[in-house]
Amino acid sequence: MLPLEHIILIDKKSSIAVYKQIAFAIINTIQNGILKPGIHLPGSREMAAILNVHRKTVIASYDELEAQGWITVYPRKFVMVAEKLPLLQPKKWNENELGHSYDNDLKINFRVIDKSSSVEKETVEMIIDDGHPDIRLSPIDELLKTYRSLTSRKLSIKNSNTGTTQGTVRLREELVKFLSDTRGLNISAENILITHGAQMSIYLAAQLLLNKQSTIIVGKPNYPVANETFTETGAQLIEVAVDEEGIDTDQIEQLCKKKKINAVYVIPHHHYPTTVTLSVERRMKLLELSNIHSFVIIEDDYDYDYHYASSPYLPLASAHHQGNVIYIGSFSKLLDPSLRIGFMVAPQNFIAQCTALRKMIDVGGDGYMQNALAELIKTGELKRHLKKAKKIYHHRRDFLNDLLQSQLSEYSLFTLPNGGMAVWLTLKKEFSVKQLQNTHLLKIIRTDEESNAFRLGFASMNEQEMEVTIDLLHHLLKKQ
Amino acid sequence: MLPLEHIILIDKKSSIAVYKQIAFAIINTIQNGILKPGIHLPGSREMAAILNVHRKTVIASYDELEAQGWITVYPRKFVMVAEKLPLLQPKKWNENELGHSYDNDLKINFRVIDKSSSVEKETVEMIIDDGHPDIRLSPIDELLKTYRSLTSRKLSIKNSNTGTTQGTVRLREELVKFLSDTRGLNISAENILITHGAQMSIYLAAQLLLNKQSTIIVGKPNYPVANETFTETGAQLIEVAVDEEGIDTDQIEQLCKKKKINAVYVIPHHHYPTTVTLSVERRMKLLELSNIHSFVIIEDDYDYDYHYASSPYLPLASAHHQGNVIYIGSFSKLLDPSLRIGFMVAPQNFIAQCTALRKMIDVGGDGYMQNALAELIKTGELKRHLKKAKKIYHHRRDFLNDLLQSQLSEYSLFTLPNGGMAVWLTLKKEFSVKQLQNTHLLKIIRTDEESNAFRLGFASMNEQEMEVTIDLLHHLLKKQ
Repeated sequence: MLPLEHIILIDKKSSIAVYKQIAFAIINTIQNGILKPGIHLPGSREMAAILNVHRKTVIASYDELEAQGWITVYPRKFVMVAEKLPLLQPKKWNENELGHSYDNDLKINFRVIDKSSSVEKETVEMIIDDGHPDIRLSPIDELLKTYRSLTSRKLSIKNSNTGTTQGTVRLREELVKFLSDTRGLNISAENILITHGAQMSIYLAAQLLLNKQSTIIVGKPNYPVANETFTETGAQLIEVAVDEEGIDTDQIEQLCKKKKINAVYVIPHHHYPTTVTLSVERRMKLLELSNIHSFVIIEDDYDYDYHYASSPYLPLASAHHQGNVIYIGSFSKLLDPSLRIGFMVAPQNFIAQCTALRKMIDVGGDGYMQNALAELIKTGELKRHLKKAKKIYHHRRDFLNDLLQSQLSEYSLFTLPNGGMAVWLTLKKEFSVKQLQNTHLLKIIRTDEESNAFRLGFASMNEQEMEVTIDLLHHLLKKQ
Repeated sequence: MLPLEHIILIDKKSSIAVYKQIAFAIINTIQNGILKPGIHLPGSREMAAILNVHRKTVIASYDELEAQGWITVYPRKFVMVAEKLPLLQPKKWNENELGHSYDNDLKINFRVIDKSSSVEKETVEMIIDDGHPDIRLSPIDELLKTYRSLTSRKLSIKNSNTGTTQGTVRLREELVKFLSDTRGLNISAENILITHGAQMSIYLAAQLLLNKQSTIIVGKPNYPVANETFTETGAQLIEVAVDEEGIDTDQIEQLCKKKKINAVYVIPHHHYPTTVTLSVERRMKLLELSNIHSFVIIEDDYDYDYHYASSPYLPLASAHHQGNVIYIGSFSKLLDPSLRIGFMVAPQNFIAQCTALRKMIDVGGDGYMQNALAELIKTGELKRHLKKAKKIYHHRRDFLNDLLQSQLSEYSLFTLPNGGMAVWLTLKKEFSVKQLQNTHLLKIIRTDEESNAFRLGFASMNEQEMEVTIDLLHHLLKKQ
């Protein structure tokens, strides 16, 4: 007989009931090929003695194993491993291996997306984000209050589970009004897909528009995750310089004359990472080129709502453009990065196909949260929040401006952005962004080694926090 | 001069400020090529008269337009459309077209995922779901209470925004314990990816494992969205019969001998849609085949926790399997379909690549909600809920059994499932599932015309609701 007392190890401190531990261990031993079909197991009395547990515990294990078909119990005769199990190759016994199901890597071939990728560890350092909102200002409480009241309304229960692939009708209808009011978009609810954040809109558009034969133009520098997403489709990526007026449309025109361009990805409002705003002339030029050369403009307008110099520029999508503009927005920047709700605005036929793909990806979003957000828009709560937050962020931008002028002008250069939630800080060439990152005191979310620059998100910090951050930067740069 | 009073239409009831309406209209008119660069606009006094608004309103509009670079104001001289705008082709004036940006379909080529797809409309009929939980039983209040307390903790703010692509460490660590306890899985937090529901795990696995050269085996019938997701990668799909013991492993063995099989997708516990459970012999056989022929088993265990006959069968993933099993689970079926949190368990190298792809798709999940769920697991609230819900669903299954026996036995056949949240009801051949669907009284989420059967989700209905539903079915079938 096998030394069952060494195979069936019981941990009385475990939260798993002892009878289950015994059953799991026996199943594993059968699966490992050690206990073969037809082999007899000790009776419950004997097993109880071997394992030093109560007999009733063993009986419970055996009941469980029998119900699952692993053993056959002949009362008052014997207990045996069921005859009908197919036999696995017996393996050399290794106690440590028992049940450790995922010690190995997956040996079977699969696609590698990112060679540098490994599982994530939690970070503990001071973080400079790339332009997050200050969620301490956000009306999360109002949102959750509505969420709770919606989940407890019995009538809404059945409907809440349907129709969320494209987004709930309520949220899409509120968005029609909100986007008309704030962005001059004249659309209907059928032109909207609610996504799980702006990135999902980029992914969906990329998957539908691009393939190995396609070419897409992006800014240089650009939002790196967008570049990865486009490259992933096999499409060719062409980078076009971004200067103080935004992406260089003359260069785009030259490229269009040379080869077929399928799409141009732009961030016209506070370009990521450089924060520049695309000028009116270039906006017009881009629309004109899109029309002549039949390419799609993917307009990523992730932080439209925070513009301090004047009202924000109207999006390209608000112009008369033959429906060639795929417009992308998000509520993560308005309320909370954790609130994963964004949207895409596009012609109906495109929205329908994005919805079909989105269904495969994750079925749909959280209908209650979408309706709670709709309520926040409808009651005007969102606008009040935007107004308040805009004022505070404006003030924080100016406060940061003073700090940077007085404390970091020896080390760095920047152009004060017209809006948005971050400053693009370029280090003078004697200093190194890479070295800034190589400290345990600080984690900067978005750096660009080629430009020797980084995003300094200010919206999430109050004055005191900004002072501490700039002090730390000053300290680190002085040492370089 | 253009008939500006017909172009600039002001809606005084609109929530958009009048000065903004004027500015938007002028911008659109410039973009439409109607107001050309260099053209003079009426002075503010004259424009106020034309539009019948206060002069200050026009001045506010002009200030806005000038700040954005659309016009140039020469005080006391004239106002003109800025010279530097590139000229679009003038279009025939059509008042209705003004600003209707998405009237057209997208004319540029893109990939069509689903030809039958169109934008969604809200449904109002009685719905028979395919096995949803009854969210009236779910501890949503506890979850939201924790969510609120987490969002208001200032310390957690910075960290909440990072590390959520793979899922928060807290939730993954709680899951390690939960999955060990309930499923005999012995894994570490690095083996877990938190996804946006079970479907996202299927999508990620499909994208990484399959391509045009691959072959995947699935059950017939199968969860249709999984089939679509696999087909979308270009892989060949081979269907293998599902009988009362689950998918036919002998047939899988024959196929493996004939050609290279890359993956097998199984739903071993309460197969979707048929509700059968994969027998122990076939489980062993499948693991053996995976080992010999080096294919990945994608184990979709979406409603593991509701098994009434005995404890649930341990998943394939708990066996000793060389790490070939990708295990997929979800909390949507435990708590609420709107709560989009699921998980994948797999070898670390595979999890790392899934995480990299997931980052492109939607950056990450809602960290607060994940941590709130972790708290629900830690405090034992989830287990208490499962225990309560299991008892109630068990009772509902038996209640439905009686109703079906007494009222629908003339029309239909079924095998009472050992667990899960739905019954697979097959209509006798004189009756038609298709016809049942063609009524405005009823919407059945999952039907299978080939089998002339449908999923009758019972978990979400109390006794009275089941009676009403069966009455309606009886009524509709009697008329056929």
